[in-house]
Amino acid sequence: MSVGIAGYGSTKFSQDDQPLDSILLDATADLFNNTRNLVQDDIDVVLVSSNDNSKYLGPILSELSGIKPRITHTIESLCNSGTNAIVSAYSYLAAGLAKTALVVGADRFDSPGQILKWDNSRGEFKHPIFWASIFTKSYKRRYNISSKDLAYVSVKNHKFALDNPYAYSKKQYSLEDVLESKELTEDVRLLDCSRPCTGGSAVLLSTKDTISKFTDFPIWLTGIGQKNTSASFTANPSLASINSTKKAAEIAFRMSNTSPNKVDVAEVHDAFTVCEPLALEAIGIASAGEGANMSKQLHESNHRRINPRGGIIGTGHPLGATGISQTIEITEQLQGKAKKRQVDHPQIGLVHNMSAGATSSTVLLFQN
Amino acid sequence: MSVGIAGYGSTKFSQDDQPLDSILLDATADLFNNTRNLVQDDIDVVLVSSNDNSKYLGPILSELSGIKPRITHTIESLCNSGTNAIVSAYSYLAAGLAKTALVVGADRFDSPGQILKWDNSRGEFKHPIFWASIFTKSYKRRYNISSKDLAYVSVKNHKFALDNPYAYSKKQYSLEDVLESKELTEDVRLLDCSRPCTGGSAVLLSTKDTISKFTDFPIWLTGIGQKNTSASFTANPSLASINSTKKAAEIAFRMSNTSPNKVDVAEVHDAFTVCEPLALEAIGIASAGEGANMSKQLHESNHRRINPRGGIIGTGHPLGATGISQTIEITEQLQGKAKKRQVDHPQIGLVHNMSAGATSSTVLLFQN
Repeated sequence: MSVGIAGYGSTKFSQDDQPLDSILLDATADLFNNTRNLVQDDIDVVLVSSNDNSKYLGPILSELSGIKPRITHTIESLCNSGTNAIVSAYSYLAAGLAKTALVVGADRFDSPGQILKWDNSRGEFKHPIFWASIFTKSYKRRYNISSKDLAYVSVKNHKFALDNPYAYSKKQYSLEDVLESKELTEDVRLLDCSRPCTGGSAVLLSTKDTISKFTDFPIWLTGIGQKNTSASFTANPSLASINSTKKAAEIAFRMSNTSPNKVDVAEVHDAFTVCEPLALEAIGIASAGEGANMSKQLHESNHRRINPRGGIIGTGHPLGATGISQTIEITEQLQGKAKKRQVDHPQIGLVHNMSAGATSSTVLLFQN
Repeated sequence: MSVGIAGYGSTKFSQDDQPLDSILLDATADLFNNTRNLVQDDIDVVLVSSNDNSKYLGPILSELSGIKPRITHTIESLCNSGTNAIVSAYSYLAAGLAKTALVVGADRFDSPGQILKWDNSRGEFKHPIFWASIFTKSYKRRYNISSKDLAYVSVKNHKFALDNPYAYSKKQYSLEDVLESKELTEDVRLLDCSRPCTGGSAVLLSTKDTISKFTDFPIWLTGIGQKNTSASFTANPSLASINSTKKAAEIAFRMSNTSPNKVDVAEVHDAFTVCEPLALEAIGIASAGEGANMSKQLHESNHRRINPRGGIIGTGHPLGATGISQTIEITEQLQGKAKKRQVDHPQIGLVHNMSAGATSSTVLLFQN
């Protein structure tokens, strides 16, 4: 059974001190406003993606929205909770248990998902900045990459975010701004980092026999790859590449019978600048050591192929919403509705979303 | 694609102050010990069911167990998290994304899922004892049921638990013990209540073409019904019946093309004594107002048809584990491996698991 994206909605990403249920509701209300013919009774499944400690958010969102779903719960897998929820929704539909599923992700600027307490148990640093720093040092040394080379990722993604009305960042930064921003570790500066923020994003998935009620431009989820390699980044066989993403991409390309060179537009998980080239190389869009140069060239040519909404660095990182926000961008691109961010006539789009030092990755492929 | 239970494992239910990841690991280790030929690489999906605030428990359990799954995350829906996770695992398999899925549920005696903070927002009582009390008063008045009639549920389920080696309760209670136990509200006494405890349970699901590696007695999941009606119990159209369970049961019986009178053995969600008759009536196993009398007769005849493991009252209620523990009992019953708890040659078994004042319900049907 084919499953596609039937609608979407989002809040603006901000530093607002907004309750979690209210963020979820705002994203859902935006989705209802944007989606033709949608009524509450159409929705069989409500999945919430969040790292928040609140319980029973699925039923709470459902009641606030007037939905009485069959299936509803919360899904958590740190930063790739959103794509886990989308794949789960796909499965309910493909398995024949439901026709239409709402997936809503949200987190606050102070989300408890930003720190993995379990790393205490083996004496590792808990904050993601430390693994990002180790990956950065290792990647730079392995491929003779400079801080300046990596800074282009930040410059590009902040620039692209200027055309994204939902983005947290509203400012253009120069190479010098990035290279002179506050030094957080020996290898990572403030503008190398995405920022935790408050935000929510929602997508509606529907089966082939139902989706035409909601849209004339369904975007089909044709490839799904996921892989978890461990719970902490030191299990990576290399610190200059990301193994879970490589495996997830292989699975997704095999399922959709396509290949990396056919990807017209992609949102990849640039939680830190080094993550964009690492992701491009693991997916197979760039060859090993060439990812940073690709980002630089895309910046200079103003080509939106990679992270057209501004990625995570430009858009902000409300953890549970991120994978869903990436999926909305790829949907709009494949529908030709991305306005100033639009890539020319894309046919195949990719979402890459990962967690906890690249120990878990999701790769999704979409086609129009 | 048919999906069945291929294996199972559990910890004993206790008041132990054990870390959550350690409970999950113990249940998983027991499952590996009990399951023929199972190796880590067989497992494509690891779903954790819990109300704990810890993050990334799926990857943590996977790494501790030596599993490198494709798909892994945590699922939360308060007390029916466990059956939500089982249905999600079913969907991944039925959708063709995976062949074998491990579902592990656990909570601690001090689980944060015992109280729904959201009820603050509308001035309702947060502790489940209050909705149980209101349901009890309403049910007794509507059908002219006495406290003594309901006390049989507690007597029966504590008695049945004596034959369950994993159960928290180890003691036989008389009718007088229940009726004279500590008064918590006007309508609910201590022995009317299940007890939060520490425990974990695990099941392995596998597809028809893979399951024979692991067992010669697969138990098939043939009916799935779920329904959420609101986030707080006051939305129930009656306080002497449970609407979400009625709808979930209808969906499950329709999917499996069977009916309530064909159910040979059932675990129903007796979080409080009143819940057993309410569940039996909503599912259709007993007619309206007759559930308490059915429990009394089953006690007197020592027939194990309903809650043979001792239900939640006898076995204990580690929230995220409960739906999985219920599923293990029904699996053992249908395999004829339930020892002293065995019902004669059952062919159809039912699991009923609900959340938050019966606002969400799951009904699962199994066949051998």
